[in-house]
Amino acid sequence: MKNIANTLRTLSIDQVESANSGHPGLPLGAADFCAVLWSKFLRFNPKDPNWLNRDRFILSAGHGSALLYSLLHLYGYNLSIEELKRFRQWESKTPGHPEYGMTEGVEATTGPLGQGTANAVGVALSAKLLAARYGEDLFNYRTFALVSDGDLMEGISTEAASLAGHLRLNNLIYLYDDNKISLADPTEVCFSEDISKKFESMGWFAQTCDGHDHSAIEAAISRATTELERPSIICFRTTIGFGSPNKSNTSDVHGSPLGADEAKKTKLALGVDPEKSFVVSTEVKNEIDSILKSKEGDFKAWMSKFEAHPNKKSVLSHLQKNLPIELTQELLAAFSDGKTDATRNLSGKAIQVLAKHLPWFIGGSADLEPSTKTLIKDTTDITKSSFSGKNIRFGVREHAMGAIANGLSYTKMWSPYTATFHVFSDYMRPTIRLAALSHLPTVFIFTHDSFWVGEDGPTHEPIEQTQSLRLIPNLHVWRPADGVETAMSYIGALSRKDGPSTLLFTRQNVPALKRKDNFKAEDVLKGGYIVSGDEPDVILIATGSEVSLALDAKEILSDIKIRVVSMPCVELFLAQDKAYQENVLPSKATKISIEAGVTWGWEKLTGGNCIGIDRYGASAPGGEIAKRFGFTAEGIAEKVRKLLK
Amino acid sequence: MKNIANTLRTLSIDQVESANSGHPGLPLGAADFCAVLWSKFLRFNPKDPNWLNRDRFILSAGHGSALLYSLLHLYGYNLSIEELKRFRQWESKTPGHPEYGMTEGVEATTGPLGQGTANAVGVALSAKLLAARYGEDLFNYRTFALVSDGDLMEGISTEAASLAGHLRLNNLIYLYDDNKISLADPTEVCFSEDISKKFESMGWFAQTCDGHDHSAIEAAISRATTELERPSIICFRTTIGFGSPNKSNTSDVHGSPLGADEAKKTKLALGVDPEKSFVVSTEVKNEIDSILKSKEGDFKAWMSKFEAHPNKKSVLSHLQKNLPIELTQELLAAFSDGKTDATRNLSGKAIQVLAKHLPWFIGGSADLEPSTKTLIKDTTDITKSSFSGKNIRFGVREHAMGAIANGLSYTKMWSPYTATFHVFSDYMRPTIRLAALSHLPTVFIFTHDSFWVGEDGPTHEPIEQTQSLRLIPNLHVWRPADGVETAMSYIGALSRKDGPSTLLFTRQNVPALKRKDNFKAEDVLKGGYIVSGDEPDVILIATGSEVSLALDAKEILSDIKIRVVSMPCVELFLAQDKAYQENVLPSKATKISIEAGVTWGWEKLTGGNCIGIDRYGASAPGGEIAKRFGFTAEGIAEKVRKLLK
Repeated sequence: MKNIANTLRTLSIDQVESANSGHPGLPLGAADFCAVLWSKFLRFNPKDPNWLNRDRFILSAGHGSALLYSLLHLYGYNLSIEELKRFRQWESKTPGHPEYGMTEGVEATTGPLGQGTANAVGVALSAKLLAARYGEDLFNYRTFALVSDGDLMEGISTEAASLAGHLRLNNLIYLYDDNKISLADPTEVCFSEDISKKFESMGWFAQTCDGHDHSAIEAAISRATTELERPSIICFRTTIGFGSPNKSNTSDVHGSPLGADEAKKTKLALGVDPEKSFVVSTEVKNEIDSILKSKEGDFKAWMSKFEAHPNKKSVLSHLQKNLPIELTQELLAAFSDGKTDATRNLSGKAIQVLAKHLPWFIGGSADLEPSTKTLIKDTTDITKSSFSGKNIRFGVREHAMGAIANGLSYTKMWSPYTATFHVFSDYMRPTIRLAALSHLPTVFIFTHDSFWVGEDGPTHEPIEQTQSLRLIPNLHVWRPADGVETAMSYIGALSRKDGPSTLLFTRQNVPALKRKDNFKAEDVLKGGYIVSGDEPDVILIATGSEVSLALDAKEILSDIKIRVVSMPCVELFLAQDKAYQENVLPSKATKISIEAGVTWGWEKLTGGNCIGIDRYGASAPGGEIAKRFGFTAEGIAEKVRKLLK
Repeated sequence: MKNIANTLRTLSIDQVESANSGHPGLPLGAADFCAVLWSKFLRFNPKDPNWLNRDRFILSAGHGSALLYSLLHLYGYNLSIEELKRFRQWESKTPGHPEYGMTEGVEATTGPLGQGTANAVGVALSAKLLAARYGEDLFNYRTFALVSDGDLMEGISTEAASLAGHLRLNNLIYLYDDNKISLADPTEVCFSEDISKKFESMGWFAQTCDGHDHSAIEAAISRATTELERPSIICFRTTIGFGSPNKSNTSDVHGSPLGADEAKKTKLALGVDPEKSFVVSTEVKNEIDSILKSKEGDFKAWMSKFEAHPNKKSVLSHLQKNLPIELTQELLAAFSDGKTDATRNLSGKAIQVLAKHLPWFIGGSADLEPSTKTLIKDTTDITKSSFSGKNIRFGVREHAMGAIANGLSYTKMWSPYTATFHVFSDYMRPTIRLAALSHLPTVFIFTHDSFWVGEDGPTHEPIEQTQSLRLIPNLHVWRPADGVETAMSYIGALSRKDGPSTLLFTRQNVPALKRKDNFKAEDVLKGGYIVSGDEPDVILIATGSEVSLALDAKEILSDIKIRVVSMPCVELFLAQDKAYQENVLPSKATKISIEAGVTWGWEKLTGGNCIGIDRYGASAPGGEIAKRFGFTAEGIAEKVRKLLK
């Protein structure tokens, strides 16, 4: 075991030295408990990195990526020594921080602190959900997350841990690399919590352990895996940069290479040939081979069970997550009455239809179900005593909600959704970005999408949020105008495989749009389409609640040849071919955007004419604010005339 | 006391009923402990709401605003019964959530949960800082924050509480309205922490108390105010909607009006005339008068002490926060050598000069001082045993860092700064928004402002962050190109009184710009100005590290009449008069923006031609990424030619 740990150490040192960039401190400190975990506990098959029931190892402290790559290489994953040598280089499989989808065996994109810590809760929750549906004999994997001081200082970690404790996720184990040194300083300058006590207060089982004593490590992990009632945290007291004679136990070793000289001295101190690099001894190779053979036995046993299991077909169908053909029609049928309603209510209706057809569609809100209308009615809550339901009660924990949903997405078994007020998308922005970067199809629902929030006032009224989400690469931002667009935005979001979507819904009522006779619901999936008006001199481009407003303004401005274009998803419209874009927005026409939010950005489509709100909202009844801001049919008509002068 | 509490209750009911909108649950539940606090403990003078040594009361659970307005009205602040009647109406002083600057006595804008909880740490810290500088006899105020279940579920609250415990802020007291009901449900569906134990684990003194027993309340607050070593949390067990016969202890009463009928029944149950509204009895008025008289005594005693105090002049000068005339010249002198350097280093130099001149300039980073270069050298850390230093060690707690800095800003005594990597501005976005909405001059520093982060990869490389900050109303976003612009961006940020600024700095070296002979440093404060080139056919508009790149590209494109415009602060440029804007960016010239981030938004200034990066970054050495992305002089020149075809 000592040799395995030291091999992890030297491979990590060599990566960092070769790149002349990276973080040697954590790999040197955490190598011992990782060696024990991967050798004696973690169930996986490097030949089948997607094995449904594999144990998960999430390196939340993503800056220690060299350690993860060393583990993956050593334990037989498809990651060659050549890739280790290309650590942190262009298009290598060994980027500076682990990136999901880039490297087999990397379970989550980590680095922004606290994210992996919270993702792990979603991954562990998934095991419970699957066990409740398809049998605990098939799904009983454990989720281990290596968490650092920095992870545990982040609020998102406490939010996530609190929910994990509440749900009694005994299949979740945090391995806390308690090295008392962070990037800038010893942690004592800013961090003096009793971590064990804190986690106990949230319903966790806490242990402390010498992180360099292999038998103690084994005993602690063993005890954690037999805990029946609570998630576990093991506080491994470690020395950052373990082995480095001059830099261990200092901040210097956190994020800078040791340097050639100190690297050699460290190898010497570890009893390894200081002149050689990227070495795995035959002895260690043989030891790992025998470990992997035993793990392969576990894998094969599971596969035999799975092949013969009555739930095999359901599991595979669940994994596919294909939308049934009739879904779109059934969704649209729910809105065929053309009634005036708030899109949050229409979304609530859509959710019921979706939940009926898609067993993998689950989610919840940050304590706002009565307002976001996101409760699935024909099911129960997910609770500590039953995981067969579909409604997740996230509590007022927006940031962890996003990361836990991403954790569910990482397992590829779910189309998870989250919900809160649109203005609070700011609270979960880092998780939306990571979903987009990691190509996760998480669905982020945000209701109360404009000043029409009304009396709650500017703290609760989104102004810049819609535009600000549009800036995130690989994110689809939907702002549907009525029931038909609401239905199709869900189809768009749930058929997406390579990235997340946000769905923005109104608090207030909006009418069902009257569209041209040749309108097909699929047009909505093009992101923008003509609602009304033929050969135009002027085009009003609107989204969400402002589309009906644009139509009303068009009536008032009957002396002008106006076309109204609905643009529920700008990203998809810009992905259409030029001919389609030109057909919808002919170059020669004057274009004016209308959206109840900041105008900055709309110039891309209009060339300059934008109607919006470039100030904060206000506390008053929504209709009153609409009048004051000129967001009435008359107000918009007047603004259009002014712009055309 | 019972009558005072019931008056708070009925005034709150009447506000909510009159608006037919609002949250009666918290006011009814928390009225008792607020009545005791305001009557027997809170030191204030309603006639001088800005008294420097007043105790602060922060309603973190801002949705309970009706209670705060009832308190302010009852205890003599300038808030008339007419304003209570205009609760949640256009431009009233009683908006849906408390807004700083709108209503005398409102100490912080609250509503987004957890923010006030964390602001309170900054406000309490300010008392310690002032006491260490000007005497504990002058500054010994206490900060009380009313926090709710929702507040405590938010991660930002744990981050803030952890730092408060670490710094042993014994002048901070959380009054936890432990009513076990949140908006959607009883908290038991998602929240089962042992709050006392959790706070104890973070170094707090925790008590529990019947929140409707006035003598128990008095004893608990009294004990908290005498605690010498630790901040305090008092968990007041209360009944949400106390007094309402049919709705108390349910989620219904959290955020919806009682309704006329239930309002009457509640008044009856409280022993108050159900037919009358907005009533304060003579008995209660007299009682409050006598309370205020005693408080006025405390105020007068303090004022006498202050008038005669040797530090009076220093305190008043500190409060003014005027920049000395020589500051700009001295700052510029620090960069007169014109050396190539990273703007984060230049910022570090500027910070030393600023700290020398401005005693109110304090701050710190989220465990990144060695990278952000934001440590003030000629001072010490702020620690639990000494508050005379200027460096705040926030720990890896970006969100609380923003809110604590805002707390310092709320006291009007500081120009606080925060610092982290630019990509992590996402973690603190809600606090930047609240600073902008509340007109707080907090300075948010973000370094590592582009893909030039390099090896750390896309999780650490800002792409959409710069543009996304520009969307926040009333925020100035500075991205200086060299030392001169760095100096002037600090002058811009620190002379601002009505809103926050973000300063974005490079990780990598940039050259000092060669400018036209008639350049004046003050031109930078116009947000955009001509760096090079006379009558142009083409204008390259660049920011930060891309300005020198634009100048190099201009050299290559010597056959084209090019002007290079530096645009360090778009918001300020757009605030200049049209003549100035036209002079810098003549209509007839073709304009092209160059910024190492998303292009969306730049069309406003260019009409369509934008050079940027509309994908995520990558892990590789910065120079390598620059080549791949075409962010070299040759690459930019080529892109410009393509756009001009």
